[in-house]
Amino acid sequence: MSGDEFDLIRRYFTQQAVARSDVLLGVGDDAALLRVGSLADLAVCMDTLVAGVHFPEQTPPAAIGHKALAVNLSDLAAMGAEPAWATLALTLPARDDHWLDEFARGFFALATQYNVQLVGGDTTRGPLSVTVQAHGLLPHGTALRRSGARPGDRVYVTGTLGDAGLALHLRQVAGSALRARFEFPQPRVGIGVALHGLASAAIDISDGLLADLGHLLETDALGAVIEVDALPRSPAFLEVIDAPGIGRSPLYYELPLAAGDDYELCFTVPPEHCAALEQSLGRFDCRYTAIGTIEATPGIRCVRAGGEPYQPAATGYVHFREDPDD
Amino acid sequence: MSGDEFDLIRRYFTQQAVARSDVLLGVGDDAALLRVGSLADLAVCMDTLVAGVHFPEQTPPAAIGHKALAVNLSDLAAMGAEPAWATLALTLPARDDHWLDEFARGFFALATQYNVQLVGGDTTRGPLSVTVQAHGLLPHGTALRRSGARPGDRVYVTGTLGDAGLALHLRQVAGSALRARFEFPQPRVGIGVALHGLASAAIDISDGLLADLGHLLETDALGAVIEVDALPRSPAFLEVIDAPGIGRSPLYYELPLAAGDDYELCFTVPPEHCAALEQSLGRFDCRYTAIGTIEATPGIRCVRAGGEPYQPAATGYVHFREDPDD
Repeated sequence: MSGDEFDLIRRYFTQQAVARSDVLLGVGDDAALLRVGSLADLAVCMDTLVAGVHFPEQTPPAAIGHKALAVNLSDLAAMGAEPAWATLALTLPARDDHWLDEFARGFFALATQYNVQLVGGDTTRGPLSVTVQAHGLLPHGTALRRSGARPGDRVYVTGTLGDAGLALHLRQVAGSALRARFEFPQPRVGIGVALHGLASAAIDISDGLLADLGHLLETDALGAVIEVDALPRSPAFLEVIDAPGIGRSPLYYELPLAAGDDYELCFTVPPEHCAALEQSLGRFDCRYTAIGTIEATPGIRCVRAGGEPYQPAATGYVHFREDPDD
Repeated sequence: MSGDEFDLIRRYFTQQAVARSDVLLGVGDDAALLRVGSLADLAVCMDTLVAGVHFPEQTPPAAIGHKALAVNLSDLAAMGAEPAWATLALTLPARDDHWLDEFARGFFALATQYNVQLVGGDTTRGPLSVTVQAHGLLPHGTALRRSGARPGDRVYVTGTLGDAGLALHLRQVAGSALRARFEFPQPRVGIGVALHGLASAAIDISDGLLADLGHLLETDALGAVIEVDALPRSPAFLEVIDAPGIGRSPLYYELPLAAGDDYELCFTVPPEHCAALEQSLGRFDCRYTAIGTIEATPGIRCVRAGGEPYQPAATGYVHFREDPDD
């Protein structure tokens, strides 16, 4: 810890709306003290966002604060965990009060939405980088893992895919709806919790559907058929993708399949649970779409609506990168 | 998460010696799953080390790996917590297998020593920076906090003070014993746990005795008298400080008072517990020294052995800095 850290933390990071009863000691001592209920497992995840690598240098600080927490809440959602606490390691090239104000505003707006209390962290001087650890709770033994899918399970995704990727692709002309999807991704916290007892496996889509579904499948050496015409696309996406001069192909398929940064959930559901799932998820103001089926043969096979195979061009993800060699 | 993160984590960070039974799910899913005993509180702390700010760029990677974990275990020790799990956010300018091998060696050697399991994290590309969160357990309501000292309590420190500061001050001629204190600080984990029921407050000395004791005192608006001739100094420190051409003053006093990076514990003990404390700490292969007394009047008053006041020159800490404007 450095001397000015105390000032920073006190000024920007102790004025939060959330005060949970399970936080015995928050920011300001050597460590935070937390009480985990005796019937709960603790889920923890940590993600780092580096300026120029994970977001453009000129990204609004409120978006950086939001996104640093959102990507972690998305990981918790993919476990079915209820978010509880966060820690924040913030590295800044220089103290900038306006930047800190805005960053804290974005961070705490999302934290308040999900009753997440900031309980500790560190502020240091250096190239701009944000690491957040999120801590979530869930009843003993109920976590949704990447493993657990079985052949015949249906594959679902929440929300719409490809919006963040399209915002990056068309950086200079992207509409505000698409840009908001990249800068202010919405973690699917409620849906993650609602999947308990219904989904057999889950993962969040940070690196693109093909990559992340691939991680889910490889844990059990399974495969899947994905119906590429069924992939959910937003009105904003369709409006841009069908605009004169851009044309439909190949971004219409490639972005929902391969672009990252959407932070939707991908999960698998045994056929006998699909009716209960649709009833359970109906109460959320968020789409969910069946996009394919788990198979025993490893690999992801994409098919068009008519049944003919579709061969994706990209196999990896399309994150924002200012560093061209990565 | 990025594509090459998986390779990195699998190769370097899944081959650890520690496998705790309370880790339900470790590295490799969206989050780690941990089981906290129903009688335990959870202590969490997070520290970031930035190259060129917290350590010289040319620091051996094993030392960086050790220190990134050690500074967090030191925070847990200052709460009296037993370390259990760690997460690691590692940002590297480029993949460097030798560097990763050495970093992991230093990290895991210390983790194994204290039965700490790495359960998750993130690896990203960017300027070299390491953030570690450590998680410790302690019986409900037994944490040692910065608050709780009372007038008349004796002030103790573990180990010796000023070694790391002297290593930095004499960078080109520092002996290996001093340099090791800076590069491989030893967290006082066992002593921290042994302080339960005996110490009234505790803090770890990362920013220097005056600064950190000041944080402890300010939580209860207290003061202290510190006996500057009683401050524990190592043989290596005394050998250098008494060498011809360097002289005793003022580093003999200033470094133990104000230099950071020693990661010893400073704690307060009510007089009626001092005998029990000395019996309890006698089993550790680590010095502990009474250096002063808590008083009701705020402020730290330094006195020489003869009783005359000593006025410290430095009020802040003396961390390593390559950035001269900080």
